[in-house]
Amino acid sequence: MPVLSRMTGRLSCGRDYHCCPDINTTLDNVCKSGFDFVCLPIVNPRYKREFIYGPAKDRPGAMTRSDLVLTGQDWNTLIVGKVSPWIQLDSEVGTIRKNSELAFKQELAYASHLGLPAILISLRNKNVSNVARCLNQQLISSYFQQQYWIHVPLMSAKDQVDNLIEGEEGTPEEQIEDTWEWWHTFRTVCDGNKRIKVALELCADLPPDHILDRWLAEPIKCVHISTSLFMTNKKGYPVLSRAHQLFLYKLFRLDVQLVLTGVERHQDKGVHAYQQYLDHLFQTQPPTDPVTQFAKGYEDYLQCPLQPLMDNLESQTYEIFEKDPVKYSQYQKAIYCALLDRIPPEEKETKSVVLMVVGAGRGPLVRAALAAAYQAERKIRKLYAVEKNPNAVVTLENMKDEMWGDQVDVISCDMRQWQAPEKADILVSELLGSFGDNELSPECLDGAQRFLQDDGISIPCEYQSYLAPLQSEKLHNEVKSCKEKDKPLEYNFEMPYVVRLHNCQLIAEPKPAFHFHHPNREKVIDNSRYATLEFAVEENSVLHGLAGYFDTRLYGDVMLSILPSTHSTGMFSWFPILFPIKVPQYLKKGEKLSVEIWRCVSAKNVWYEWLVTKPRVIPIHNPSGRSYTIGL
Amino acid sequence: MPVLSRMTGRLSCGRDYHCCPDINTTLDNVCKSGFDFVCLPIVNPRYKREFIYGPAKDRPGAMTRSDLVLTGQDWNTLIVGKVSPWIQLDSEVGTIRKNSELAFKQELAYASHLGLPAILISLRNKNVSNVARCLNQQLISSYFQQQYWIHVPLMSAKDQVDNLIEGEEGTPEEQIEDTWEWWHTFRTVCDGNKRIKVALELCADLPPDHILDRWLAEPIKCVHISTSLFMTNKKGYPVLSRAHQLFLYKLFRLDVQLVLTGVERHQDKGVHAYQQYLDHLFQTQPPTDPVTQFAKGYEDYLQCPLQPLMDNLESQTYEIFEKDPVKYSQYQKAIYCALLDRIPPEEKETKSVVLMVVGAGRGPLVRAALAAAYQAERKIRKLYAVEKNPNAVVTLENMKDEMWGDQVDVISCDMRQWQAPEKADILVSELLGSFGDNELSPECLDGAQRFLQDDGISIPCEYQSYLAPLQSEKLHNEVKSCKEKDKPLEYNFEMPYVVRLHNCQLIAEPKPAFHFHHPNREKVIDNSRYATLEFAVEENSVLHGLAGYFDTRLYGDVMLSILPSTHSTGMFSWFPILFPIKVPQYLKKGEKLSVEIWRCVSAKNVWYEWLVTKPRVIPIHNPSGRSYTIGL
Repeated sequence: MPVLSRMTGRLSCGRDYHCCPDINTTLDNVCKSGFDFVCLPIVNPRYKREFIYGPAKDRPGAMTRSDLVLTGQDWNTLIVGKVSPWIQLDSEVGTIRKNSELAFKQELAYASHLGLPAILISLRNKNVSNVARCLNQQLISSYFQQQYWIHVPLMSAKDQVDNLIEGEEGTPEEQIEDTWEWWHTFRTVCDGNKRIKVALELCADLPPDHILDRWLAEPIKCVHISTSLFMTNKKGYPVLSRAHQLFLYKLFRLDVQLVLTGVERHQDKGVHAYQQYLDHLFQTQPPTDPVTQFAKGYEDYLQCPLQPLMDNLESQTYEIFEKDPVKYSQYQKAIYCALLDRIPPEEKETKSVVLMVVGAGRGPLVRAALAAAYQAERKIRKLYAVEKNPNAVVTLENMKDEMWGDQVDVISCDMRQWQAPEKADILVSELLGSFGDNELSPECLDGAQRFLQDDGISIPCEYQSYLAPLQSEKLHNEVKSCKEKDKPLEYNFEMPYVVRLHNCQLIAEPKPAFHFHHPNREKVIDNSRYATLEFAVEENSVLHGLAGYFDTRLYGDVMLSILPSTHSTGMFSWFPILFPIKVPQYLKKGEKLSVEIWRCVSAKNVWYEWLVTKPRVIPIHNPSGRSYTIGL
Repeated sequence: MPVLSRMTGRLSCGRDYHCCPDINTTLDNVCKSGFDFVCLPIVNPRYKREFIYGPAKDRPGAMTRSDLVLTGQDWNTLIVGKVSPWIQLDSEVGTIRKNSELAFKQELAYASHLGLPAILISLRNKNVSNVARCLNQQLISSYFQQQYWIHVPLMSAKDQVDNLIEGEEGTPEEQIEDTWEWWHTFRTVCDGNKRIKVALELCADLPPDHILDRWLAEPIKCVHISTSLFMTNKKGYPVLSRAHQLFLYKLFRLDVQLVLTGVERHQDKGVHAYQQYLDHLFQTQPPTDPVTQFAKGYEDYLQCPLQPLMDNLESQTYEIFEKDPVKYSQYQKAIYCALLDRIPPEEKETKSVVLMVVGAGRGPLVRAALAAAYQAERKIRKLYAVEKNPNAVVTLENMKDEMWGDQVDVISCDMRQWQAPEKADILVSELLGSFGDNELSPECLDGAQRFLQDDGISIPCEYQSYLAPLQSEKLHNEVKSCKEKDKPLEYNFEMPYVVRLHNCQLIAEPKPAFHFHHPNREKVIDNSRYATLEFAVEENSVLHGLAGYFDTRLYGDVMLSILPSTHSTGMFSWFPILFPIKVPQYLKKGEKLSVEIWRCVSAKNVWYEWLVTKPRVIPIHNPSGRSYTIGL
């Protein structure tokens, strides 16, 4: 499988070479051993040029092998180019730096000429600004879609040596050089250019989990594994430690490709054995949970939140959500409990209830209610199915004719306008968005509670939203690239998105934001809200936005939740919501992060405004709902 | 003089009222006492509304006096509105906050209705985010050019009381609440909106100079002075302390208006006495230096740096620069010294020199050279005046005919192309820009040194550029508003501007950046440069860009300098240069600020790239010269 292609059930694994006397022989050997691509120096190491008197083109002889040794197709799919290791763009010596700049430029130009799919550039220390600047010049001036893989070790060479010397104890954590900072500086100088990816080099002793997890929020495209990391199993084959295996499983989820580096250390088994083992690891990944399976293909894909009040949902949208294996069974359970509480056993023959489903859609809650009544052996005298979407009403009317009969009345009306002929004992709705209130459930249910008995039950009876600080350059770039014509860039960053969070990490655990309960019997109902949340920053990181979640108590102790720590197992109806921020904020370990968010309500709209006030204040996002409102 | 009008040799001074039973009587009294405008509550303090059951419009009776009591013209020029002091947008109590929001909105709406030129909003503590948010909603939704004056005390009320109690010693500096932070948070939340200005309230004991100076980088529109700050002189009149006077002199340069607050404390003299004293202070300001006088009207005005190689200067441009009273006398002095060194006294009758002026313009350096020779009693055998602008050559040819005769040859040619008939002893040029090399003096002189004797002299013989971190919201907003159609906003921030720095402060002293010398006898001349500069941040501040300066050694010890600490007295030919940065960077006291800048050279262009790497890295500015290059 060629470089850059998406996974199709098989691992893409490359082999790294320091030099390559004959490229065709090398390619043959590599392919025979099961590898998919090779990493080769862009120019022959013999041509280490000095550039003292100007660029090499003025000197006799070719810089490197001819492009004719391979077909364009092969260059374009099988070869990852490596920049010469002698190039020191970070040198403090002016002549070395300048000669390095000339050589770097020339090698990148030749790699572009060959059409290589990706170029590997190694970072060796924290002084990366000139490397980044020189690459950025290339990025600005070329429109070719070549990728640049920035090779970063999980641990700096120095720290690895120190570990070796000091044995078990290793370097104290505060002295370890954080190689993530190298990468962070690099990509920031390049303004987060999407053509720059991480090539992460594994090390023998993995750093702690929170350091590993932070990498999972970065655009890792490739993972370098040295043959020296492999142990030998009883049969003499190369295998990796359990810790390495577990980290690789996490990396596989980001669609990484692997590159095997270093000399063969199990020569009797051949280099093929390494590739076979890595592919074996890939094939035997732990199975994914149902929600992950459902979300396949939606990872980090930004969706505008539904506006069910303003727009009518489509048939396919109903179909997907009706398939949720958890949500409706929880609703059924909640209605079951409510019915049992409403009608004591001794009255179950004589008493009955009026139940209304507001926002009935194509009927799943009607079915859940009828099933709950059957199960509870309680009577629903009348079930009103209220739905404002006339297209969904067609389905409801057909179901009434075919199944439900007179017990169900289908009402084609907006619940806020409907003049109900009687009051309900139980009001059932599913109007919640990924952030709880963001599909205007509070306003709808406040409007509908006119026709709920004074002691009537609302299902759900309360909901709570949560926010957590999020790091994800991927999502930041996705938001950036949403830019609409004629709108300033900032507008993209002033609206929330529903998104399956994937290539990201939470910087701190979610904290509660807004709470609502139903029915709301306050004299003057005010659904505007304000929350200020403070988080402790546990590791240097970058804030790209806020991840939003909700949970809801349907009735009694029957809950639905999309909060990671309490997520309803297998429920896929809601992905989290993302409130982006325009300028990523670098956060230092130990700093306090303070976030403020408002839910604003006017006669026509609801919208959110949000900002960060600590450690450094940023401009408020979406003032007056200028970029995003939810229509009432 | 009405509010908001620009100064015309007289101070604009207003009078503050807590309440105003009759607005016409008040206005009459105030005008009789010599004041120009009044600050009044927008609504009558009696109408402190509670807003518990909704906005006041639902309640009987008018909210405040009718708009008919004054003409529109008077509302628009004489009245600054004050938001009610009971409004607490920062309250932690939900109902108080919400009622405050409603009242705040209503008062702002009424002030807009009246067309008041400015509204005063007081900050009382550091919790300003909701005040800023609510005002920002108004800013976003109204296009009326009303200003909002954010009233900030120089010292918080608490710290002033502490000072009083603790007497001489005062509060230890690290515990004093920095009210500048209140303002910084406020304007950042509002994204630096240009309609928001500072109304600074003076206090009895002024904070240290560096705290005062930081305020001079803010958009101060108005200064509040309480009658309680005045002392009484021998004749019984109110006067201010020397410290207050000196700070007011600095503030006058920012075109501030004053507002007198508090009760009359010199009742026998009348309130008029305060106004008279303040106007007296204004009239008796220390005289400004010649450069400041020359720069009048150019303060903070952004100019694109000249590109004399690409464009031909206009007659008026030559005229202005030729008037510099210092530059040409320094050149004359330098040439004088060079001639004396070149021809010893004993050879003064027998030996002569060839002198070339490259970039002769309309001839000021030719005149300086001839005058220097006369003064030195040395002979110039031939003076070649080389000029590429054919329009300036017309002037030169006329001068030759009328004055210079055969001694001067006028050469209409680019110095880089000219085939000189002989070699020069002395090469004189004035090709320097505000950042030294930014008008490509290095490239031009490298091109011209072909026709300089091996032991010939270049005047200037060397130059050095300098950079200092700069805070100036004003300049940041100026750059922002330069936005050109069809260009992304960032492009404005990726080019340097020549500008008379005014409403700004240097965060740290300038440090050297690039150095050049002439003639340059290196084998391979490389005019690309790289510098990394580190600055210590001495006070919390905001980085908006880098101020650039240069100095040059013409010959011997004859210098020209625009560096603040060594500025050539009276020389006005160069304003500093500004390298802006796109996103302002908040800097904390004690942090290290690290800046990197490159001078890049291609076959066609020269450009700069710059970035900040510490305390937090930012994207590189002007990569590959995408926004700004200087044409060769």
